[in-house]
Amino acid sequence: MSATTDKYAFGMIGLGVMGRSLLLNMADHGFAVAGHDKDAAKVASLNDEAGDLAVKGFGDVKEFIQSLTTPRAIMMLVPAGKIVDAVIEELTPLLEKGDILIDGGNSHFTDTNRRVEELEAIGLHFFGMGVSGGEEGARRGPSMMPGGDKEAYNVMKPIFEAIAAKVDGAPCVTYIGPGASGHFVKMVHNGIEYGIMQLLAETYEIMKKGLKLDNAAIGKIFTDWNNGRLQSFLLDITKDIFAFKAPGTDHLLLDDIKDEARAKGTGKWTSQSAMDLQAPIPTVDTAVSMRDLSKYKALRTKAAGIYSTQDRQAIEGKVEELLTALEQAFYFTMIISYAQGMHMLSRASEEYQYDLKLDEIAKIWRGGCIIRSKFLENIYGAYGKDKNLEHLLLDGDVAALVEGTLPGIRKIVASAVNAGIAAPAYAASLSYFDAFRSERMPSNLTQAQRDYFGAHTYELIGKEGTFHTQWAPSED
Amino acid sequence: MSATTDKYAFGMIGLGVMGRSLLLNMADHGFAVAGHDKDAAKVASLNDEAGDLAVKGFGDVKEFIQSLTTPRAIMMLVPAGKIVDAVIEELTPLLEKGDILIDGGNSHFTDTNRRVEELEAIGLHFFGMGVSGGEEGARRGPSMMPGGDKEAYNVMKPIFEAIAAKVDGAPCVTYIGPGASGHFVKMVHNGIEYGIMQLLAETYEIMKKGLKLDNAAIGKIFTDWNNGRLQSFLLDITKDIFAFKAPGTDHLLLDDIKDEARAKGTGKWTSQSAMDLQAPIPTVDTAVSMRDLSKYKALRTKAAGIYSTQDRQAIEGKVEELLTALEQAFYFTMIISYAQGMHMLSRASEEYQYDLKLDEIAKIWRGGCIIRSKFLENIYGAYGKDKNLEHLLLDGDVAALVEGTLPGIRKIVASAVNAGIAAPAYAASLSYFDAFRSERMPSNLTQAQRDYFGAHTYELIGKEGTFHTQWAPSED
Repeated sequence: MSATTDKYAFGMIGLGVMGRSLLLNMADHGFAVAGHDKDAAKVASLNDEAGDLAVKGFGDVKEFIQSLTTPRAIMMLVPAGKIVDAVIEELTPLLEKGDILIDGGNSHFTDTNRRVEELEAIGLHFFGMGVSGGEEGARRGPSMMPGGDKEAYNVMKPIFEAIAAKVDGAPCVTYIGPGASGHFVKMVHNGIEYGIMQLLAETYEIMKKGLKLDNAAIGKIFTDWNNGRLQSFLLDITKDIFAFKAPGTDHLLLDDIKDEARAKGTGKWTSQSAMDLQAPIPTVDTAVSMRDLSKYKALRTKAAGIYSTQDRQAIEGKVEELLTALEQAFYFTMIISYAQGMHMLSRASEEYQYDLKLDEIAKIWRGGCIIRSKFLENIYGAYGKDKNLEHLLLDGDVAALVEGTLPGIRKIVASAVNAGIAAPAYAASLSYFDAFRSERMPSNLTQAQRDYFGAHTYELIGKEGTFHTQWAPSED
Repeated sequence: MSATTDKYAFGMIGLGVMGRSLLLNMADHGFAVAGHDKDAAKVASLNDEAGDLAVKGFGDVKEFIQSLTTPRAIMMLVPAGKIVDAVIEELTPLLEKGDILIDGGNSHFTDTNRRVEELEAIGLHFFGMGVSGGEEGARRGPSMMPGGDKEAYNVMKPIFEAIAAKVDGAPCVTYIGPGASGHFVKMVHNGIEYGIMQLLAETYEIMKKGLKLDNAAIGKIFTDWNNGRLQSFLLDITKDIFAFKAPGTDHLLLDDIKDEARAKGTGKWTSQSAMDLQAPIPTVDTAVSMRDLSKYKALRTKAAGIYSTQDRQAIEGKVEELLTALEQAFYFTMIISYAQGMHMLSRASEEYQYDLKLDEIAKIWRGGCIIRSKFLENIYGAYGKDKNLEHLLLDGDVAALVEGTLPGIRKIVASAVNAGIAAPAYAASLSYFDAFRSERMPSNLTQAQRDYFGAHTYELIGKEGTFHTQWAPSED
């Protein structure tokens, strides 16, 4: 087929695993598509995989551009940061007014804001779009979060709706909102992902060090969980990981992998942005700090040699009861992770005037993306019932689910604490909840202290204005 | 005296509480000093307070500049951000090459980096200096953290050493390092301050809601603690706050203050910068997220109405034993707060080539500043013994102190968790410790997951390089 196609309807720059997979997905759906990469091996690999599909890879950027129908539609899927700017700089002289440029990578939303302005100024349509689903999602159906130039998105809509994952027939893509909202929502998606991944790591730690279960038993529990209300993509792959032997051996590949987690920074960006928005997401913050701590292997090894291990021990109690508690605890923390992320989106929607539709966002996260899970149906339901729901934990149905898990989460956190096992994201999720449902927090003391030492003033219950007091006792 | 002084040795721009207090402190030590503020009331108030001291306030900036001996030495103490730039813009045409300009406010260190370049380019000496101690510290002896232009600092050194707080005769000021290191160190100081303030708030919460103690009993415990190893400025003012009645009433002013804590942002900056440095400081992160959460009073009130309070109860056990545990727990978390902050300074010193001397920093924090405490002597001792100590928790003496507090911190966190009382910074500090002393963390799972869904590759124990696996089970 590719031999008979003169012009291509869509172009992709960056033929890494995501770009290549998305192109092949488009071709599967009948679109003739072209790809470009500076790396000749990647171009060749696309052409090899193309088979009968209308896909062609170009090593030369000009040939690539000339191969596209006009107005052109081009997506970049390249590493965030300076590379995106370099690609734009190379491309813009080759493009014409009215062409559409899409940044499908994980760009920081403030970079996207800047590029929206820069490209609008030279007459190009530009929008940022978060794409989630990893390699498999990109190939078979991702979840996509386009924001910005709505007119341009509407032109592209047929392609994106065709290739998106489908849940109950509905495509997992929708116009998110103005400006950099697409990238912003994808960033928060990744923050939630960081949180849940950290929670899965802690669950593994609790089962391994606290319950002294072997990998086979742990794998079985993850498999069982994935057949119930905890069903999710991340649990699904975790159960697979617990079935994957190191080639030629009888033990899990997992056991050979270093306990130093790398990161590309989207979790960090989520936490940093949440702090700017004053939207607390401590579960995500904890995931970020624990990935960072994992990198200090030498320090940790020294510390392990210094501190007595006498206070680290197996968790006391019947394993079966503890596993029931752990299932509740994990469900609780999953709910809290999503709740913090959705709350951050609400705050951003106000602050940046994104006018986000949280029910639509939950809807397109139900399939294709890394954080897809059964529970997203509940989130979709909650925001569907009340589009102005201020916080997921205020939804009556969610509250009932949370209440049911409280004995489990308290049991697990207290047990881990007593056993000397680190479960920081579990603990942070529970603390967040306990503070969140406190009508009265102890922050009046913080206010008083700030006024005492810095004359920063304080506010009084039931009174307007700010007040200052000379708190120090007189010295006579 | 002021009438007989024609020229002043030092000028201050910004006559708020800090600027005015610092000027009077300098005058106390025999320096003739001038101040300027756009706010005539502040100028008048300085002149009123001057009495016989060689202090004069000017409303006109040109008169102020002309009143200074040359080369001039001028400090700005104005709110961080655009106001600093505006003051610099107004000043620079009035200054001459060789004049010294000091930013004594809480500027973000990246702004200071920029200003160092801008002002060097026009021949002015400029340095950023963190000043801690609040109103009382500024007036009677602050702790100061100057960084940047060393030559200029050496010119100013006699004044700053004279006005600084003294501990065992040593002034609480020392040259910190190049660039923006002074402001960076002050930022981390404030981050530690946020952490300890949050821990004090949680201690209050535990005593009030968990141990059901009244304010008089809580105040007595804070007073007792402040006479022991926990002695610190923050505990000292907290005990005073628990003795301060609302004027004309029989109850504490504290009880009338709103539980919504404000912030000027230095804690947030610390957490955001720590994430950039990949230096985990989860106790500070938690303090930031809890200040943020405290602002959502309406949400919290709604949540309190939805969630049953059946799982919130008094902590079980003998109050006396619990208070012993709480003292240990607070000591533990204080140590962890400082340890995280010092570790962040080590990382910054490497990353930004600040060549920080952590023993010197601990030394000047022992007096004058908001985080001064008895425990800073231990920190000073630890870094004094080993200037290259990688982490405070690796010091043998500190480790022995930590080991002694572990029963207490475990007891308190588990009790708070079971009683439904939020103690997030307590829990985060303990989790950090338990992860820190783990030779093996569960982060291998995170690596495997990242490789599974995103082909991000992983590393193997004892092997060089990165690896990628097709993890998904085959579908036949």
